[in-house]
Amino acid sequence: MTALHPDVRPTDALALDASAQDLLFREARTANAFTADPVTDEQLQAIYDLVRFGPTAMNSQPMRLVAVRTPQARERLLRHMSEGNRPKTATAPLTLIVAADTGFHEHLPTVFPHAAGARDAMEANPGRAAMARFNTALQLGYLIVGIRAAGLAAGPMTGFDAEGVRAEFLEGTGHEPVAVVNVGRPGPDAWFPRNPRLDFDQVVTEV
Amino acid sequence: MTALHPDVRPTDALALDASAQDLLFREARTANAFTADPVTDEQLQAIYDLVRFGPTAMNSQPMRLVAVRTPQARERLLRHMSEGNRPKTATAPLTLIVAADTGFHEHLPTVFPHAAGARDAMEANPGRAAMARFNTALQLGYLIVGIRAAGLAAGPMTGFDAEGVRAEFLEGTGHEPVAVVNVGRPGPDAWFPRNPRLDFDQVVTEV
Repeated sequence: MTALHPDVRPTDALALDASAQDLLFREARTANAFTADPVTDEQLQAIYDLVRFGPTAMNSQPMRLVAVRTPQARERLLRHMSEGNRPKTATAPLTLIVAADTGFHEHLPTVFPHAAGARDAMEANPGRAAMARFNTALQLGYLIVGIRAAGLAAGPMTGFDAEGVRAEFLEGTGHEPVAVVNVGRPGPDAWFPRNPRLDFDQVVTEV
Repeated sequence: MTALHPDVRPTDALALDASAQDLLFREARTANAFTADPVTDEQLQAIYDLVRFGPTAMNSQPMRLVAVRTPQARERLLRHMSEGNRPKTATAPLTLIVAADTGFHEHLPTVFPHAAGARDAMEANPGRAAMARFNTALQLGYLIVGIRAAGLAAGPMTGFDAEGVRAEFLEGTGHEPVAVVNVGRPGPDAWFPRNPRLDFDQVVTEV
């Protein structure tokens, strides 16, 4: 790969080595075409085993993943994707439906054991679904980094019929789909030109 | 650092080397105490310069950061933190207020230039604030990884009076605080025991 932003170079201010910076952020790109190389069970497990250590509020870990690999499952998914997202989703060897488990509080006695009563308090909390979505988005950030850590390209999408995907794949689970992510090796013409990023001074202020 | 989960070892299924896996995920921990070592402008800029390349929907990049380093600014923040989060926030050399810019659409003509009309469509979209929060959470995931990439520890918190922080620091900006993150080198007794993570089979299903 060639550096896409030659003006922004790795810096000594980071402890992470330059090749890892490139792999995860600087040269990694959202892929829009994929080769036929499969993504194996071992790879998917290794990605999850890495990113599950990322922190979440109350260790709530509400992200759930539905792995779509077979042609039959892919057909069921494609009809709910927005038109522009269909061709690339049709070619990806693995597509992950990323969902927020609004019933994450059932796991709190196990994953947040020192806070007695957390499960019951969260069950009664009207902000529970919003908390599930927020922490699932946080975990999606870790997941995209983890997919890249496996040497694969991620293609995250929010352009789909969420209610259609929910009814098709998640009926009765209390899981709400929040994103769909294609995963694989980038194919021909996989990249659009990279869009501009905001400057430091547009994002960070000091008080 | 010692491995905290000796049963989960780096695997050949990942392209990222084992030391980087440990730095970013396996041995990185949410810190609850910090040394007095400052976090420099150069470090903060390097972290942002890395994580800004993470993908967001429509390249919307709604995350905004308010850097709190002076004793005066820290005092203003502490009064809005929940009681349990005050002592650690008092000792962190840098604290970042992470906010969602609900006016992110004003940047779309620059950051998503090929989609004419995206700014106006998003201005009229009733889901705009929710989109800002979701994509800010996604960027918060990248930010936590980036803080660790700088060899620093992150301490993300959602226990604070959001309306108080908004009125104190973000009045008139259209930015909504979604998290507060302490940043620094871990101090004595910085870690709680790590809480359990969900197993692969609890999170991933295949259809």
